[in-house]
Amino acid sequence: MYNFEYQNPVKIIFGKGEIKKVGANIPVGSKILLTYGGGSIFKNGVYDQVKAAIQGFKVIEFGGIEPNPHYETLMKAVEIVKNENITFLLSVGGGSVLDGTKFIAAAACFDQGDPWLILSKHAPVKNALPIGAVLTLPATGSEMNGNSVVTRVETKEKLAFGSEKVMPVFSILDPEVIFSLPEKQVANGVVDAFVHVIEQYLTFPVNSPIQDRFAESILKTLIVEGPKVLANRTDYESAANFMWSATMALNGLIGVGVPQDWATHMIGHELTAYHGIDHARTLAIVLPGIMHIKREQKKDKIVQLGERVWGITEGSVDERIDQTIQKTVEFFESVGIPTRLPDYNVSTETIDTICERFEKRGFKVGEKADIGPVEIRLILENRL
Amino acid sequence: MYNFEYQNPVKIIFGKGEIKKVGANIPVGSKILLTYGGGSIFKNGVYDQVKAAIQGFKVIEFGGIEPNPHYETLMKAVEIVKNENITFLLSVGGGSVLDGTKFIAAAACFDQGDPWLILSKHAPVKNALPIGAVLTLPATGSEMNGNSVVTRVETKEKLAFGSEKVMPVFSILDPEVIFSLPEKQVANGVVDAFVHVIEQYLTFPVNSPIQDRFAESILKTLIVEGPKVLANRTDYESAANFMWSATMALNGLIGVGVPQDWATHMIGHELTAYHGIDHARTLAIVLPGIMHIKREQKKDKIVQLGERVWGITEGSVDERIDQTIQKTVEFFESVGIPTRLPDYNVSTETIDTICERFEKRGFKVGEKADIGPVEIRLILENRL
Repeated sequence: MYNFEYQNPVKIIFGKGEIKKVGANIPVGSKILLTYGGGSIFKNGVYDQVKAAIQGFKVIEFGGIEPNPHYETLMKAVEIVKNENITFLLSVGGGSVLDGTKFIAAAACFDQGDPWLILSKHAPVKNALPIGAVLTLPATGSEMNGNSVVTRVETKEKLAFGSEKVMPVFSILDPEVIFSLPEKQVANGVVDAFVHVIEQYLTFPVNSPIQDRFAESILKTLIVEGPKVLANRTDYESAANFMWSATMALNGLIGVGVPQDWATHMIGHELTAYHGIDHARTLAIVLPGIMHIKREQKKDKIVQLGERVWGITEGSVDERIDQTIQKTVEFFESVGIPTRLPDYNVSTETIDTICERFEKRGFKVGEKADIGPVEIRLILENRL
Repeated sequence: MYNFEYQNPVKIIFGKGEIKKVGANIPVGSKILLTYGGGSIFKNGVYDQVKAAIQGFKVIEFGGIEPNPHYETLMKAVEIVKNENITFLLSVGGGSVLDGTKFIAAAACFDQGDPWLILSKHAPVKNALPIGAVLTLPATGSEMNGNSVVTRVETKEKLAFGSEKVMPVFSILDPEVIFSLPEKQVANGVVDAFVHVIEQYLTFPVNSPIQDRFAESILKTLIVEGPKVLANRTDYESAANFMWSATMALNGLIGVGVPQDWATHMIGHELTAYHGIDHARTLAIVLPGIMHIKREQKKDKIVQLGERVWGITEGSVDERIDQTIQKTVEFFESVGIPTRLPDYNVSTETIDTICERFEKRGFKVGEKADIGPVEIRLILENRL
C-alpha cells in the first residue's frame, strides 16, 4: 500500500423521511440559492419537502442545470450569487446538479481571473461557498466528495476539477427518491457506480487487502441490488443498499493508498462531449475495451475480479480474463445498457477526432500514464 | 438498513516516514501538551521524530498515562492544561494515551462541575481542546473516532464517553511503529480490532450488505495479516494492512445503519477493572460465551460469519454455530491469547461480583438490551 492522506468531513444523513432535516443543517440567517435540474423535483415531492424544511430562510431558486452541467448555465448562477449576496448553496438533484453547484461555489469566490481556469488549468480553489445537498439520484458519488465535471458547450469540452473546499457540508440521502426514477437513470446509476469502483481497483496489485475487499464488496452489492431496484422501484431496502453503494464507490475510501486508472472516464467524457451519450453509457462502452487492450498490465487484478466477484475459477489466465470481460459486459447489457459504439450510432470518424484531441493535449491516461492516442484507437476500435 | 447519520472529519496521514508532518498540521502559535505513556516512545525513535517535527512550538510534556488510563492521572494533566494555557493536545502513544488525552481535552473545557460527570453521567461535552495523534500501536481505533474509556482506580470503575468534539483533528499512522512492539501488544491489537468488528456485525440481519461485507473484509484481513505481523514484525506491508484494518474497524463506518452489540466490551471492562486483565484479552474471554449463550438470537449472523469468513459450509445450523465459535476461539489462541477465565486465575467469586454490579446498575446490554445479570452469569460460567 502507498502512503496516503484521507479526510472526508461530509455529514451523511441517510434514510427515509430525512429530507426534513435540511433546514436544521443550514446556518441560521443564510441566504440560500436552491439549485436544481430539469424539474423532476416538482413531480416526486422532493421540492415540497425541501421547501417545507427551509421555511424562514431567504431563498432564491435556480433551475435548469443540465445533465453534464453547462459552464454557460452555471456562470449565470454565479452572477446571481454575487448580485444577491448568496451565502449558502443548496443542491437538490442528482450528480449533475451537485457538480454544477460545486463549480458555482468555487467560481463565485474565484479572484484569479476567468473561472474557466478552474477547469482548464486547474487553478487552485482557495475559497468556495458552503454547499448542502439533497440527492435525488444515486450514481456519481458527488454527494461525498470534492469532485465536479463541467461541460463547455461552445468548445465541446468536458473537464473536471476537484477541491476539498467544494465537498458538501452535508448530504441528505433518502432512498425513496429512487421510487420515481425512470429505468434508464437507475441503470445508468448502477453502471456509473460500478465503474467508479473499477477505476480504483482494476490496476495492479500493491498488497492492499482492505481496499480490494471493500471494492469487491461494493461491486458484489451493486450486482445483486441493482437488478432488484430495476425490477421493483419501490423496494426500499434494495434502493437503500444501491444508494449507499454509489456513495461508498466514490468517497475516496477505496482509493486510498492504491494506484488509480480513470482512463475509462477520460475517454468516455469525449463520447459525451461529441455525441451527448449519457456518462454511464460511455463508461460501459469504454471499460471492456480497456480491459481487453490492457489485459497484460491489469491481469492480476482482472483475474482477482473474475474470481472474487464473478466466481470465475477455471481456465488459463487468458481464458479467465476473457470470461471476466464477458461477465462485465453481460452485466451492463442485463441492466439495459449497450456496450458497443454502433449501438449509439458512433462511427469511426469520432475515433479519429478523439485520438486527435488526445494527440494535441499531449498527456496520457491510465494508472501508468501509458494510454495515449495509439492505445485509445485500439480501445475504441475494440468497441466497434 | 436503519436510518443513520455519519460524519468523520479526522484527517488520516498514513505511511512510513509520515510522522515528520505532525508540525505542519498543528496551528501556528499553539502551546502543546505532548502526552505519552510508559516511555516506549523514547526507545523506538518516535519521540525524537515528533520533537524534530514540532520545533518552534512551545511544548510541555506529560508522560505516564497508563494502559486503561486512570482518571486520577488525567486530572493532573487537566491541571497543567489550565495553569499553562495549553491550546493543543498532541497524543503520542497507543489507544490508552489517546483515550486519556480525549478525556483531558474534554475535562479541561468542562464547566458544569466535576469532570467525572462526563463519564459517570454522560454529561454533554460542549467544548474540547483540539487533539492531534501520533499512533504507536494499532488496536483501539481511537485514532479515528470520538470514543474514550477511562478507569477510576479508587472505585474500580471503567467507564466510556463519546463526543465528536474529541475526535482527533489529525492522526498520523506510520506502520513502522509496529516493528518494535512486543508480541503481546500486537496480539492484543489483532484481537481488539477483530472484536470491534464483531460488536457491530454479529447481531441480527437488517439487510445491510455493504456494512456486512466491509466488516467481513476487515475480519478476513486481520486473520491473514495478524499472524504475518506476529511472525515477522518488520514486514512493513503486513504491518500497514493490520494498522489500516484496526482503524477501519472502529471509525464508525461499518456500524452505520445496523444494530450494535457491545456486550462483550461491557462485560470485559469489568474483568479489567477487577483483575487488570488486558482489554483485548477480556474480549477474547467473553466473546465465545456470548456467541454460545446468544446463539439463537444471533444465529443468522453467526452462520454468515462462519460461511463467509471461516469457510464453514457444512452441517446443521447448530453445528455451524459450534464450528464458528470454535474457529474464533482457535484464532484467538493461535495468536497467543487464552480464552478461558482460569487461564487468568479468575474465580467464580468474580462472576458473583460482576453480576451484582450489573444488578445494581439496573440496565441490560447487547443489541436487544436483554443481557442482564442472569445472562452474564451464564456467559461467564461458559468461560470457566
